[in-house]
Amino acid sequence: MSDTPHVTVAAYLLRRLRELGVAHLFGVPGDYNLGFLDQVADSPDHVWVGTCNELDAAYAADGYARLRGAAALVTTFGVGELSAVNGVAGAYAESVPVVAVTGMPATTVATAGRPVHHTLMDGDYGHFGRMFAEVTVARADLTADNAPAEIDRVLRAMVRQSRPVHLNLPTDVVLARVPAPDEPLLAAAEPVDEGLLRDFLASCARMLDGARSVTVLAGHEAERYGLRGPLRELLAAAPVRSAVFSSGKGVLDETAAGFAGTYTGEISDKRARSAVEDADCLILVGAPVSDSVTGGFSHHFAPERTIELRPSRAAAGRAVYEGIGMAEAVGGLGEVLRAVRLPVPDGYGEGVACPPVVGGDELTQRHLWSAVGSFLPEGSVLVAEQGTAFYGAQEVPLPADGRFVGQPLWGSIGYTLPATLGTALAAPERRSVLVIGDGSLQLTAQELGTMARYGAAPVIVVVNNDGYTVERAIHGATASYNDIAAWDYTALPAAFGAGPGTVAVRVTTPAELADALALAARTPHELVLIEAVLPREDAPELLTALARRFAEQNAYGA
Amino acid sequence: MSDTPHVTVAAYLLRRLRELGVAHLFGVPGDYNLGFLDQVADSPDHVWVGTCNELDAAYAADGYARLRGAAALVTTFGVGELSAVNGVAGAYAESVPVVAVTGMPATTVATAGRPVHHTLMDGDYGHFGRMFAEVTVARADLTADNAPAEIDRVLRAMVRQSRPVHLNLPTDVVLARVPAPDEPLLAAAEPVDEGLLRDFLASCARMLDGARSVTVLAGHEAERYGLRGPLRELLAAAPVRSAVFSSGKGVLDETAAGFAGTYTGEISDKRARSAVEDADCLILVGAPVSDSVTGGFSHHFAPERTIELRPSRAAAGRAVYEGIGMAEAVGGLGEVLRAVRLPVPDGYGEGVACPPVVGGDELTQRHLWSAVGSFLPEGSVLVAEQGTAFYGAQEVPLPADGRFVGQPLWGSIGYTLPATLGTALAAPERRSVLVIGDGSLQLTAQELGTMARYGAAPVIVVVNNDGYTVERAIHGATASYNDIAAWDYTALPAAFGAGPGTVAVRVTTPAELADALALAARTPHELVLIEAVLPREDAPELLTALARRFAEQNAYGA
Repeated sequence: MSDTPHVTVAAYLLRRLRELGVAHLFGVPGDYNLGFLDQVADSPDHVWVGTCNELDAAYAADGYARLRGAAALVTTFGVGELSAVNGVAGAYAESVPVVAVTGMPATTVATAGRPVHHTLMDGDYGHFGRMFAEVTVARADLTADNAPAEIDRVLRAMVRQSRPVHLNLPTDVVLARVPAPDEPLLAAAEPVDEGLLRDFLASCARMLDGARSVTVLAGHEAERYGLRGPLRELLAAAPVRSAVFSSGKGVLDETAAGFAGTYTGEISDKRARSAVEDADCLILVGAPVSDSVTGGFSHHFAPERTIELRPSRAAAGRAVYEGIGMAEAVGGLGEVLRAVRLPVPDGYGEGVACPPVVGGDELTQRHLWSAVGSFLPEGSVLVAEQGTAFYGAQEVPLPADGRFVGQPLWGSIGYTLPATLGTALAAPERRSVLVIGDGSLQLTAQELGTMARYGAAPVIVVVNNDGYTVERAIHGATASYNDIAAWDYTALPAAFGAGPGTVAVRVTTPAELADALALAARTPHELVLIEAVLPREDAPELLTALARRFAEQNAYGA
Repeated sequence: MSDTPHVTVAAYLLRRLRELGVAHLFGVPGDYNLGFLDQVADSPDHVWVGTCNELDAAYAADGYARLRGAAALVTTFGVGELSAVNGVAGAYAESVPVVAVTGMPATTVATAGRPVHHTLMDGDYGHFGRMFAEVTVARADLTADNAPAEIDRVLRAMVRQSRPVHLNLPTDVVLARVPAPDEPLLAAAEPVDEGLLRDFLASCARMLDGARSVTVLAGHEAERYGLRGPLRELLAAAPVRSAVFSSGKGVLDETAAGFAGTYTGEISDKRARSAVEDADCLILVGAPVSDSVTGGFSHHFAPERTIELRPSRAAAGRAVYEGIGMAEAVGGLGEVLRAVRLPVPDGYGEGVACPPVVGGDELTQRHLWSAVGSFLPEGSVLVAEQGTAFYGAQEVPLPADGRFVGQPLWGSIGYTLPATLGTALAAPERRSVLVIGDGSLQLTAQELGTMARYGAAPVIVVVNNDGYTVERAIHGATASYNDIAAWDYTALPAAFGAGPGTVAVRVTTPAELADALALAARTPHELVLIEAVLPREDAPELLTALARRFAEQNAYGA
């Protein structure tokens, strides 16, 4: 054992994070994490990204993980971690792999239950860990003895379940020496039960036999479990239509033949609805239902004609096969489909077009989405805030190799601005393009300054429609509680310390918007903020329809 | 029963809140709370204060409760309440009575465990309630049947224990009709055990017999349990000295004879230290110890010479009397002290002076605190952010009828800016004066816009010292993780929509600071922001000493 090279616990954790593609750590310094931050600062493989507050760090980590496959958040005990916990819960709801590292008081202080700052003053150091247990799939209180095993166990759970995890790192454990990792974190792939897979595929083949039309509907788990490539191959195997839940937008090639757009139950446009509901066989890939992605549970799937893949379970009609991973199942289904002689559906090669430009001098949602759709460069990341932006974005097909980030399941307003800091740092070679409402922007606006500080150069369209339009659509159209303070949005970047190259313009007509986006295209290395002034109650049709269904679901009665 | 007037659950809750002095509710609208917000909007007794985000609402509620004795926070399920939970935990650590009301999905939706937005998508609607149980003293899931009893039980616990509580209010319960309250929430005072109190006071009398010097040391519980008046009477009963923990600053009259300032263990100034440590008898009133108020547990109290009052327990030397409230004990001690013939201590009438003005053209912490001390109008509320501001403020005696707000136990940076929104709305007749560092301001800066929107007119001194000086003092003096983005602080109010009357000035010399404060005095109804540029490592002596002790406590080892 004496020959085993030793490293500090901090170095061990950082090495594991690097293996997972985590080169940036997001967070806020606090006196219980400063020793760990020294190690981050000294690591040639890592960059510390200090955000203005911890919730924003959690959101940024979530955005980063969606592009990189993992992310890390570092806060201090109590005050820091609890500020971030909503962002961690969002990662849970949306299946995003993020590790939250909490710098904790020294083990002796905690064991003695001393009344130190950042505790509840009751001697119980377990409160916050128990709170994190509610919104993570694994967690550990690290010690000098258990650190290697526990770090590995917790990070493996994060990756394999694609969910957040939590590590408590006491100050006295940071520099304790432990054996260095001697094999990769994810050395062995999880074994495939070949017999079970064969049985499942045989059932699928029987369902597909004689099918005249097949549609793949992908959700967010398809994206999180890395199925972009396997799905592309599956769709190349036969003339299959494809669609996404809004939660899964971005996982399919939206320029491909057969792509029919976003399916949202009864409120979908005709083409997507027909593709999904009229198919002889529907293949759901990582697409669990929720109210926001199904138009309030108004989806119509016929179980006997549906094949469903979930992270560790597959179903062919009513036959359920526990323990089959999605990647194997998608691969196998490609083989099956190749053997089925599917006719080419009508209009198969047409693709989904960008919303057409309409006339008029007043800028509306329709103009906005048409212009954004035309602007999006190849490989760009469209980030759309929950509210009018998220539902408007569903009308816009992504460019080749495009990505999409939104948060329809958790739906925490303010999420996307820090998430865009995360996407921009995770993939600087892709332009991140954020569309966000004014009400949402106000929750987390200060990260505009952090973007500028770390050289992130997204395009940010702030939809100024004078308040919470999404809430107005659901309830209280003219209520004052849906009003917000009237900010001067174009003044924000400079106030937050952005450099002189930063672009900040206000547009009120379609022509001004076009000019602003043209300028954004010419300044790929600068942060560009475009304030787009829109009518107060102008909302994308999809949002209006969904809001009606949410209002019914909420049932205030009386 | 049919004669009992009925009201909605919302009206019942609002009526109870009004009884407790809660006229403002802080929060963010979300689709599960909009029905309740309708009722708030319709109530002539209540004002809705929409903050930019939920954590800020929790902080504002905390500040409001410190002036008013109670406060309410309203968020939506999951996303909203979890964003606020750090502020609720802070209220717990610091004994502040705040009710967090969560607008929850309809009972039928929750009971069925449907995968709707703002849940973790796992069917378990209990996660967030369990998280709140960790940081509250009572909570309830309201139904049409249990609402009156549960609202009363939970709000009574909030008031009697002076701690936060949580109510889940489902959409379908908001307008359910229940019997109106027929007696006051706090009808009966809790009974006093007269015999127990007599025994305790007899023990105290024996300890005080022959004492030549007595000192009262008050902590935050004295403030939260409304002992300002009783303590004033106690201190008038005999020539006793008085001092505060930094947590209790503001509960004693700092212009009174015998006030010796803030006691912080070994790092206190000589006068406060001598008053506390050399007293023949020390009376601790609502003053639990913690590292931040005792200079890292460096206090010296001799148990046999100490009388200690806590919310429901009193001790005379080593004899403990369970079940005695602080108000009765303070009242009884006044009687006892009147009977003791204490000599008047040396220097008793001198009072604590404001830090003297020093020379030099460069603005320093010493200039700042001297100027702030001279500025504070009678009855003003000094709010000091954790960090250099909080410890600098300890040197400044409050004016007559002054108040003080800080958060030394929980120590969540960013707290004070929204808390100042709360204090300013709770007590518009008092000028709120906030001193906050640049690093802290960046967490929650957007509530400057909310202040302007609701007519709050505090004076805000932003100490621009280029980063987290408090963290630099503890660890990482030159580390880049203690740097922050260089904001243009005086541009913030206008960017956040503050009106043209708002004052925003940058000062770099003592003379400019004096001019700015003179302007603030002439504009009592305007928000005034003063950016004071200070040297990066200039910190109040008290902070420097405390930071050294925290660094030892953290023990990164190696």
